[in-house]
Amino acid sequence: MSEIRVDPARLRYFIASAFEVVGMPAADARTVGALMTEADLQGSDGHGVIRLPQYVKRIRAGGVNLHPDIQVVRERAGMALLYGDNAMGHLVMKRAAELAIRKARDAGVAWVGAQWSNHAGPASLYAKMPLAQDMIGLYFAVGNANHLPPWGGLDLLLSTNPIAAAIPAGEEPPIVLDMATTVTAYGKVKAKAQRGEMMPEGWMIDRDGKPLTDPRRANEGFLLPIGGYKGYGLALVVGLIAGTLNGAAMGKDVIDFNADAASPTNTGQAIVAIDPSAFGEIGEFKKAVDALIRDLRGAERMPGVDRIRVPGERSHEIAAEQKASGIALSPALMQTLDRLAEELEIAPLRTN
Amino acid sequence: MSEIRVDPARLRYFIASAFEVVGMPAADARTVGALMTEADLQGSDGHGVIRLPQYVKRIRAGGVNLHPDIQVVRERAGMALLYGDNAMGHLVMKRAAELAIRKARDAGVAWVGAQWSNHAGPASLYAKMPLAQDMIGLYFAVGNANHLPPWGGLDLLLSTNPIAAAIPAGEEPPIVLDMATTVTAYGKVKAKAQRGEMMPEGWMIDRDGKPLTDPRRANEGFLLPIGGYKGYGLALVVGLIAGTLNGAAMGKDVIDFNADAASPTNTGQAIVAIDPSAFGEIGEFKKAVDALIRDLRGAERMPGVDRIRVPGERSHEIAAEQKASGIALSPALMQTLDRLAEELEIAPLRTN
Repeated sequence: MSEIRVDPARLRYFIASAFEVVGMPAADARTVGALMTEADLQGSDGHGVIRLPQYVKRIRAGGVNLHPDIQVVRERAGMALLYGDNAMGHLVMKRAAELAIRKARDAGVAWVGAQWSNHAGPASLYAKMPLAQDMIGLYFAVGNANHLPPWGGLDLLLSTNPIAAAIPAGEEPPIVLDMATTVTAYGKVKAKAQRGEMMPEGWMIDRDGKPLTDPRRANEGFLLPIGGYKGYGLALVVGLIAGTLNGAAMGKDVIDFNADAASPTNTGQAIVAIDPSAFGEIGEFKKAVDALIRDLRGAERMPGVDRIRVPGERSHEIAAEQKASGIALSPALMQTLDRLAEELEIAPLRTN
Repeated sequence: MSEIRVDPARLRYFIASAFEVVGMPAADARTVGALMTEADLQGSDGHGVIRLPQYVKRIRAGGVNLHPDIQVVRERAGMALLYGDNAMGHLVMKRAAELAIRKARDAGVAWVGAQWSNHAGPASLYAKMPLAQDMIGLYFAVGNANHLPPWGGLDLLLSTNPIAAAIPAGEEPPIVLDMATTVTAYGKVKAKAQRGEMMPEGWMIDRDGKPLTDPRRANEGFLLPIGGYKGYGLALVVGLIAGTLNGAAMGKDVIDFNADAASPTNTGQAIVAIDPSAFGEIGEFKKAVDALIRDLRGAERMPGVDRIRVPGERSHEIAAEQKASGIALSPALMQTLDRLAEELEIAPLRTN
């Protein structure tokens, strides 16, 4: 069976409808629907509509607060701490990004942390928000399930704790890095399972240290950090500055939101907005980024490599292609969404 | 020949004397000597006194400004940009860290970038400075020679661009991560060459993509990024926020300070000071970090692993041991320093 293409507007509407049916206020449902669709649009298929059934399940189990009072609980010139009140993470982090941008306009750089948030989709969604204001965005988060032990250990005390960064360019598309501190993100393991595919060696190992390649056995092993102990260190530091610093869950306090739909996760995330115009002339900065991108892209290539990319280039192209031709969804995912529509008694995403 | 142990105070004095003889003001010579000794003390042996001959050569070639006017050229509540005036990087980054700490006291978080700086030794030296004020330090830098091509490419457009982070704990030693975005730092390659040892496979490859293990052939190949394209992305982003953002060298503008001792490097670095007491109660934060460290350390271990460490633990132990027993220097390095002392007509480091 081949992939199915779905119009982005229809996907947004479908997601929003699903959330409204389970009690989310319409405006919030539209916001989350738009962000989840944006995730799929840019090819972050482990973090888009594939998560809808899980979100709905969590909402129905009372694990998410649908009427949250998201508030700034601490604030200084260069930072703020947002209390998410167990809202959908998308709502908390959109607010956090907006606040960071506003504060960075005065302070030059602003760091906004969030506590009592939830899974918010791909890190790059939020890191990219400052781009519209010609600002740099950095994003750090504590993942919502521990799949990583400390280096040399077996206890799952760390998550894939992602890092994202978005840097505005002039004529070139922005540079957008979105990476788990593990060789792969758990969302990609889920996507492999969804598609019935095996994982390459190097993504996960089992408790005996042997390669684990069947994504259906994912809960028997753990993800591997990038660069061995370095990735362990990065995951730990990201967890400290996105979780512990915000009074959010980290280490053994992280709730596995795959296994437990009811307990509040107290997810911690952080976004940093950096205004390059505080450091110098913005036009010069963007020109320098353009020049760098062109140098990288034009570098001499290794044998067999037909193209050198900068981070975010592929996802930028996927977004452009899918905006024109529709978002590609696997038949398996479409079936899942059909079942969900039936269950929620909303119009199915599939129209034929 | 076995290693030679040197008293830290004597090493500091030796380094300062060498710098004074080539014209550095005494106070600056003492500052740089102290920071370089601290690097050796904590086991960052690729960034300590091993660099002295190179620094002296650069100073003599007129590549460093010995009477710099280090100034704040841009400032907002949450950031500052420091003009290093081609000073020794140690002097610039010590000032940057002090400024970031002072600003973070008010702003909660402060980001200080530097332009027209120089090589400053190990990243962790500066990331650790906020610890004394119970603050978190983050440090990013553009490396001083390009050893990394874009992923799939051959042109050396990127450096090992390091990331460091230091997080204060309560009763436990702080967590200190100091990592190149490459599998190994170029300083470690130099140290291997110095000791006449071969490198393990995976550190470097040659232009045909084959493993390069002889450190004396280092200039025929390049370092490998951690996690493949992820490490390339990280090195690029670090270079953008530590270099390009500050109007400092990045990409093809980076001066190879191993090959060119005379041209100003316009090195870019950045330090972020984060005051956890702006986010919550500092005692609670430190307790949470302690608890996390103990959980990680106490995790069940993989077969064959006798101990789980947190980042910085080993270097903390090395520093304690070397403070008591002296700093271990290889006989080859000692010979180099003996020759340098003779050349500069200063008292040799070796006393017997």
